[in-house]
Amino acid sequence: MGEDMSNKTNSGHFFEDFKVGQSIQHATPRTITEGDVALYIALTGSRYAQFSSQKFAFDVGFEVAPVDSLLLFHIVFGKSVPDISLNAVANLGYAECKFLRTVKAGDTINSQSEIIGVKENSNGKTGVVYVRTRGFNQFGKEVLSYCRWVMVNKRDANHPAPRAELPNLAPFVAPTDLVAPCELKPEAWDCDLSGSKYSYEDYEIGEKIDHKDGMTVEEAEHQIATRLYQNTAKVHFDGFGMKASRFGKRLIYGGVVISTARAIAFNGLENAGQIIAINAGRHVNPLFAGDTIYAWSEVLDKVEIGGGWGALRLRLIATKDLPCDHFPLKTESGDYLPDVLLDLDYWVAIPLRRFMQIGV
Amino acid sequence: MGEDMSNKTNSGHFFEDFKVGQSIQHATPRTITEGDVALYIALTGSRYAQFSSQKFAFDVGFEVAPVDSLLLFHIVFGKSVPDISLNAVANLGYAECKFLRTVKAGDTINSQSEIIGVKENSNGKTGVVYVRTRGFNQFGKEVLSYCRWVMVNKRDANHPAPRAELPNLAPFVAPTDLVAPCELKPEAWDCDLSGSKYSYEDYEIGEKIDHKDGMTVEEAEHQIATRLYQNTAKVHFDGFGMKASRFGKRLIYGGVVISTARAIAFNGLENAGQIIAINAGRHVNPLFAGDTIYAWSEVLDKVEIGGGWGALRLRLIATKDLPCDHFPLKTESGDYLPDVLLDLDYWVAIPLRRFMQIGV
Amino acid sequence: MGEDMSNKTNSGHFFEDFKVGQSIQHATPRTITEGDVALYIALTGSRYAQFSSQKFAFDVGFEVAPVDSLLLFHIVFGKSVPDISLNAVANLGYAECKFLRTVKAGDTINSQSEIIGVKENSNGKTGVVYVRTRGFNQFGKEVLSYCRWVMVNKRDANHPAPRAELPNLAPFVAPTDLVAPCELKPEAWDCDLSGSKYSYEDYEIGEKIDHKDGMTVEEAEHQIATRLYQNTAKVHFDGFGMKASRFGKRLIYGGVVISTARAIAFNGLENAGQIIAINAGRHVNPLFAGDTIYAWSEVLDKVEIGGGWGALRLRLIATKDLPCDHFPLKTESGDYLPDVLLDLDYWVAIPLRRFMQIGV
Repeated sequence: MGEDMSNKTNSGHFFEDFKVGQSIQHATPRTITEGDVALYIALTGSRYAQFSSQKFAFDVGFEVAPVDSLLLFHIVFGKSVPDISLNAVANLGYAECKFLRTVKAGDTINSQSEIIGVKENSNGKTGVVYVRTRGFNQFGKEVLSYCRWVMVNKRDANHPAPRAELPNLAPFVAPTDLVAPCELKPEAWDCDLSGSKYSYEDYEIGEKIDHKDGMTVEEAEHQIATRLYQNTAKVHFDGFGMKASRFGKRLIYGGVVISTARAIAFNGLENAGQIIAINAGRHVNPLFAGDTIYAWSEVLDKVEIGGGWGALRLRLIATKDLPCDHFPLKTESGDYLPDVLLDLDYWVAIPLRRFMQIGV
Repeated sequence: MGEDMSNKTNSGHFFEDFKVGQSIQHATPRTITEGDVALYIALTGSRYAQFSSQKFAFDVGFEVAPVDSLLLFHIVFGKSVPDISLNAVANLGYAECKFLRTVKAGDTINSQSEIIGVKENSNGKTGVVYVRTRGFNQFGKEVLSYCRWVMVNKRDANHPAPRAELPNLAPFVAPTDLVAPCELKPEAWDCDLSGSKYSYEDYEIGEKIDHKDGMTVEEAEHQIATRLYQNTAKVHFDGFGMKASRFGKRLIYGGVVISTARAIAFNGLENAGQIIAINAGRHVNPLFAGDTIYAWSEVLDKVEIGGGWGALRLRLIATKDLPCDHFPLKTESGDYLPDVLLDLDYWVAIPLRRFMQIGV
Repeated sequence: MGEDMSNKTNSGHFFEDFKVGQSIQHATPRTITEGDVALYIALTGSRYAQFSSQKFAFDVGFEVAPVDSLLLFHIVFGKSVPDISLNAVANLGYAECKFLRTVKAGDTINSQSEIIGVKENSNGKTGVVYVRTRGFNQFGKEVLSYCRWVMVNKRDANHPAPRAELPNLAPFVAPTDLVAPCELKPEAWDCDLSGSKYSYEDYEIGEKIDHKDGMTVEEAEHQIATRLYQNTAKVHFDGFGMKASRFGKRLIYGGVVISTARAIAFNGLENAGQIIAINAGRHVNPLFAGDTIYAWSEVLDKVEIGGGWGALRLRLIATKDLPCDHFPLKTESGDYLPDVLLDLDYWVAIPLRRFMQIGV
């Protein structure tokens, strides 16, 4: 480095920089506004009534309209990228994601992470880092907590491997840890306005839903969305640099896949707008601009959680360029089909029937 | 359908599902916010002063800045798509569209439709459905009412044809039905700020205006706009599915054409920002991404409507890849030119001269 | 022109229309909203904390979060386009740009220009027009002032050349003219939240910073941004018309380059979010959709300006498809490299160390 050159640029952390127990306050707190909410609708096509209408939200029991859990998730996640995953090779998985408090437009969110595990890979060039990231509001209250693990490059392949430490992650968020989004008012959830008469009671374990609609994603769309979340991972934005990558082009942020699939999933899950936990998630194949996302869901479990709400444990499968009327998932040998993008296991809140007002 | 499959997905209504007199409350009420207004400007390039500036709007006589009538129209329209036109072959026309109350950021809009006519086509495979759709605000007050008719597929070609019933639609909205947007203050409409000194009095019946500017529409732009309106018609979004269509690609929502043409029409109609009625409208050719929209207008009629406003009845013609200095419209045989996209007949409010403050 | 044709369309001014001393009130005042702020983040990827978080802004000493100076600049600039540069051949340069008052969401901005110089080119077909453009808020207070000069076509090449008058423009904004963004509170600027511990004291004159990140710009993105600013220059939007231009395609608004480069410059200038003056700027090569922007900076000067702030005078170089680890700029013969897009000289405010709270 020449004497007139700066060392102020963040080059991100490498595998050997991460120590178990280390805590990181991420930069760029964000006040979520009505502008962000409008953009989230415009970028995903979300139609869940409680996020779209202040009046609907108030009438059913919210103080004001909540912000979509996924918009919150992406914002909290985005802040962690410069510190955690700027040099990530791959985002391997999520677990123990809990939405703890309702967030509304006007709230200011910041994001912190703790390193909870490290394990060098046998190739000696990369390692897996496990982090727990938490989002906090302007009052310092925790609104979101999740774990993820990423494969990160080592700066120096000769750096000795640390002692492997793996976190003990729950296979799914326990029903007792689920937080109801609000106290629902009896018979207040207007099914004509929400778009469906199906309540918690109507969904059965094992039921599969083909959401039918398809959504093509353009370069401009995923870039605008990912910047909205202030996620800076180079792979999403640097088209010139990505020509030299193994894909030869920009990769779409996995959160765009999740949000698009969830917007598509409105068709068949109209009253199940609010994600309250993510048990596990894997991006099993990459998405590129020009691909069309389709999605289907399976009901894995169900439980009442109080406040007038039940929770459905859903598996959400997103595909590319493959409609889901046959519920595509894996090959006979048990591998994911190359058309499958996402395998997400999450809990969503849905009103009990007696809190709904079924149209006449 | 297997036992583990769901029947909860909306596949839309087919021709035989629609009965005259039937009433439908559409889903997903929407609080229109400053975020939506900003996006509408960013997506269309609209520059009409009363929508852009709270101060301008207040100074001329509005309580607060009104929301552009077309943003309201698209939102009300979008809600009707899942119930009315998910299986539409074509959106055939509009009539009797009246903007009844000014809508502002913060208002929550929902949408209802009544079936006012059905007529099966002679091919026995499709039929035309006539609907009146109304938008209501959070106080239950009607803000918008319009009729449209769409060609819809039958689910079962063997289903017997219903008795044809056709609504009696007015050829245009009567001047006595036009609602002035507000009570204007004398000499308050600042022409330097609005961008033109031309008032109601300056426009003559028969006058044609070439709006000159051209606007190319990209896939990302029309998708973002159409999702903003929560319009879910597959033809706009499902690039993979549309490869098998007769067009081989996504169609752009006709409302994008209308809004783009109206934004272009600022050049020559600077004081005529506010649509108060749509008499008739036809999308005569489809628009695809990459095409460039141009537009011209003709003054069809004019009338004073009170509150300091006049109304111009305008014909707005939008073209693709064809500048409008020669006012392109039809062939010698009377068919629309293949480059013509839109033929829209509407009323727009424009201040009378004595309510304007002409720059010195 | 036929008798039924209108002369109401703005064709823009030509060189011979501009007279020194002439004053122009530009159209379309704009209330900047939280929607605009969200879009600015989504379109640029800006991460500077004081624009992103109401709480951060308040905690350090702002009344409310300021609007990014560049968003303000683009909006003020955009209003001047229909009157000044609709027939511009090229935007040649900027000087004496001062940000005089903090602008926040909710403020309404209008824009005025004065012609301060004209000089016909020796070819007799074009001339250079110098203008000073000012932005004012809803209280009539000046918030921004800058000079620019543009090459404009003559309507009539035979029109006699005016007497050349050139303004006396300062080579840079004097430190005494710099306005501190607010009164900072001691030890309040949280460096963990802002993303960097580097204060005014840490930057040295001559220091160069490679900002590393790259951002590809799509047609939809620059069009959405430029419409957000209500900038109507045809070259950015009319893809059909631009096929006949020497570039064969749309040009990207130079402001998109500036804003993207400044967003990239976060990496290494995290605490220097707020531009308070632009000394000089040149767009030395055009940017087209699909190109990837990179950027580097050099510290030219530094000065304390009161209120807890220092000012860094920075040179910002943006390139296309050329990473900046070697600080690319000019050829051996002194011409800009063809890959260089922008050479911008500006003052930015950054807290003094004692007003910062360095993480433990």
